[in-house]
Amino acid sequence: MPTGVMAPLVALFSDFGLGDGTVGVMKAVILRIAPGVPLVDLTHEVPPQDVRHGAWILHTLWRYLPEGSVCLAVVDPGVGTSRRPIAFAAAGCYFVGPDNGLFSYVLDANPVAAAVVLDNAAYHLTPVSATFHGRDIFAPAAGYLAAGLPLAELGSAADAATLTTFQPTRPRPHPEGLVGHVLHVDRFGNLITDLGPELAPLVLSDPLVRLRIGIAEVAARAATFAEGPPDAPFMFLDSSGHLAIAVRGGSAAARLGAGVGSAVIALGAHPPV
Amino acid sequence: MPTGVMAPLVALFSDFGLGDGTVGVMKAVILRIAPGVPLVDLTHEVPPQDVRHGAWILHTLWRYLPEGSVCLAVVDPGVGTSRRPIAFAAAGCYFVGPDNGLFSYVLDANPVAAAVVLDNAAYHLTPVSATFHGRDIFAPAAGYLAAGLPLAELGSAADAATLTTFQPTRPRPHPEGLVGHVLHVDRFGNLITDLGPELAPLVLSDPLVRLRIGIAEVAARAATFAEGPPDAPFMFLDSSGHLAIAVRGGSAAARLGAGVGSAVIALGAHPPV
Amino acid sequence: MPTGVMAPLVALFSDFGLGDGTVGVMKAVILRIAPGVPLVDLTHEVPPQDVRHGAWILHTLWRYLPEGSVCLAVVDPGVGTSRRPIAFAAAGCYFVGPDNGLFSYVLDANPVAAAVVLDNAAYHLTPVSATFHGRDIFAPAAGYLAAGLPLAELGSAADAATLTTFQPTRPRPHPEGLVGHVLHVDRFGNLITDLGPELAPLVLSDPLVRLRIGIAEVAARAATFAEGPPDAPFMFLDSSGHLAIAVRGGSAAARLGAGVGSAVIALGAHPPV
Repeated sequence: MPTGVMAPLVALFSDFGLGDGTVGVMKAVILRIAPGVPLVDLTHEVPPQDVRHGAWILHTLWRYLPEGSVCLAVVDPGVGTSRRPIAFAAAGCYFVGPDNGLFSYVLDANPVAAAVVLDNAAYHLTPVSATFHGRDIFAPAAGYLAAGLPLAELGSAADAATLTTFQPTRPRPHPEGLVGHVLHVDRFGNLITDLGPELAPLVLSDPLVRLRIGIAEVAARAATFAEGPPDAPFMFLDSSGHLAIAVRGGSAAARLGAGVGSAVIALGAHPPV
Repeated sequence: MPTGVMAPLVALFSDFGLGDGTVGVMKAVILRIAPGVPLVDLTHEVPPQDVRHGAWILHTLWRYLPEGSVCLAVVDPGVGTSRRPIAFAAAGCYFVGPDNGLFSYVLDANPVAAAVVLDNAAYHLTPVSATFHGRDIFAPAAGYLAAGLPLAELGSAADAATLTTFQPTRPRPHPEGLVGHVLHVDRFGNLITDLGPELAPLVLSDPLVRLRIGIAEVAARAATFAEGPPDAPFMFLDSSGHLAIAVRGGSAAARLGAGVGSAVIALGAHPPV
Repeated sequence: MPTGVMAPLVALFSDFGLGDGTVGVMKAVILRIAPGVPLVDLTHEVPPQDVRHGAWILHTLWRYLPEGSVCLAVVDPGVGTSRRPIAFAAAGCYFVGPDNGLFSYVLDANPVAAAVVLDNAAYHLTPVSATFHGRDIFAPAAGYLAAGLPLAELGSAADAATLTTFQPTRPRPHPEGLVGHVLHVDRFGNLITDLGPELAPLVLSDPLVRLRIGIAEVAARAATFAEGPPDAPFMFLDSSGHLAIAVRGGSAAARLGAGVGSAVIALGAHPPV
């Protein structure tokens, strides 16, 4: 990536919500360092401190950023402890945040061009608080990267292999088929599962495969919400490429009593090993 | 409208909420196409899939946009079906979204300079998903318009007379006066009714006219919140030009047990026919 | 502050929420007057009409704005009455909003360079509504200041000494120590108290001091969330410099049944008078 050039945008992602003003403060800090850089909120409604959930949501969003973007992501229950504050370049973008697994999917899918620990105090907001590195370490780092500072200036080089990742939840074989889980419930009550681009088409294309969630079974399929049956849950291919469950004009989460973590068994699905 | 010139802003309006990151993705897509264009969120809290409610909220907002703005509005329960994705020029702005009545008030009040169906795949994000045209069709269209692409490039010309509109809710005569409805409950619990700029002054100026909502009657009037009676609901002229009901320091919705769709009878109001 | 130069940003702060589109309208109005000026939302989730709470939240945020910023703050239960709409320059920034105490902490801590009443109708959006000065008076004023118009153009000079301030809540002596109050509950359920930068270190550094909230006592201390005890509330120094109470991986507000206004007694704290 070129340095010395203003980034096309800084994307912000967190579990901070919008009520406390902490996101606004991070933006003010960024604009002090990179005047006029466009700022885009991805979301700030990640469930508080839920790094795994945050990692998945981030996974569905970051790939739409223009090349050269800076992605500032903070879900950070370990703020102030020995977990490292990091920045790295991958997939044509910069990522800035805590080294706690939040970037698992990004790191899983893309080689890291370079990584640093954000330990150069010259680029911190001082005094650095123990509980708001978003403001004091991450926002300044994002601002300096956006303004064109080379990544290496921000701190000591980090070995990409040492960056923290966790094993994403993946569907597993089950006596009756395949068992996955709900990864996310969206604003419309749709249940997005961990049956991703490799498995979702297999389930959707075989009319004999049904989904069991709790005591309910879902057999209907539709390509769009409006084409779903009028009064039964149905499965569809979510815009993230994952298998999902909806209720037309209603909430699948409410209808099925399901939420993040609920098991979804694809009965009769036996993918080739 | 001039083409080849960057729009002053792209306004975004939807029922997506801010939790899923879908709004952020649309912004990223727009900024890839129109780098640096200012982005303004109107609201993303339209009740899920409520096209009529969305149409009314949009009506109260779009007229404040600067000339040449692009207004991207998505409340789209029919996404992926045969409902057309459209863009049109009216009132000095561009509007982009589904052809499902969401633009009813805009179309009702303004002649359409030109309209297209967004069927030029060269300006889609591919592959186009079946359930997120906001990302794959509407955001790119808004981005290209913002970047100065002529409207006609985005697709086939559409006859303005074929664009979908529904009849807005309007007050009707009632044996005891006039019956209207609550269109919106705002953040403060104020009830905004469909007695608009023609009828609201008539009701407010005649001290004999009272409002009946459920079993309650509202007789007091005030120009401002602070001037309302200390412990009774009162009517006032909302900043949208509509008759509205408030409780000083409280919520009229909670006090009166009323919400969107509640009937409001203006007792003794007999407008000239 | 220089005039004739575009401001680095306009920060927006209110109790409007994001559901009604009123914040979007204010932004559109600002961008009509100051095309392209960066806009930053501080927060719009101040509890409705709660000027005192708003004043405190604003206090924790505005100091991070770049020099020359315009800070538009509206929590305004007296909109349309005789309370004055004002703008003033202090601490290198401009502040615009109602003269009702919302700027108490700003005014308490910083000399005012100049102040005006926003009574020059040439810079209003007409007709001025009685209930939405955010759109009709404050947003235009912020826009003109952002575009470089001299403050004095916006209206009659106001004597800084006449600007409204209220006495912030401060801890008081108590037979058993010191009694303060919860000022804010953040997104994570942390309780931020009014024991500020002078008192918080004193409480935290003396291991004999405990906090009583309702019937509970808090004795543990931690520098970071992750270092807190696994199953008891603990005190920490919030990033605002105030004494705060957290529960690791949970909500102190829920655990302790406490909220804004709850008394917090620092048992055994006897600061030097």
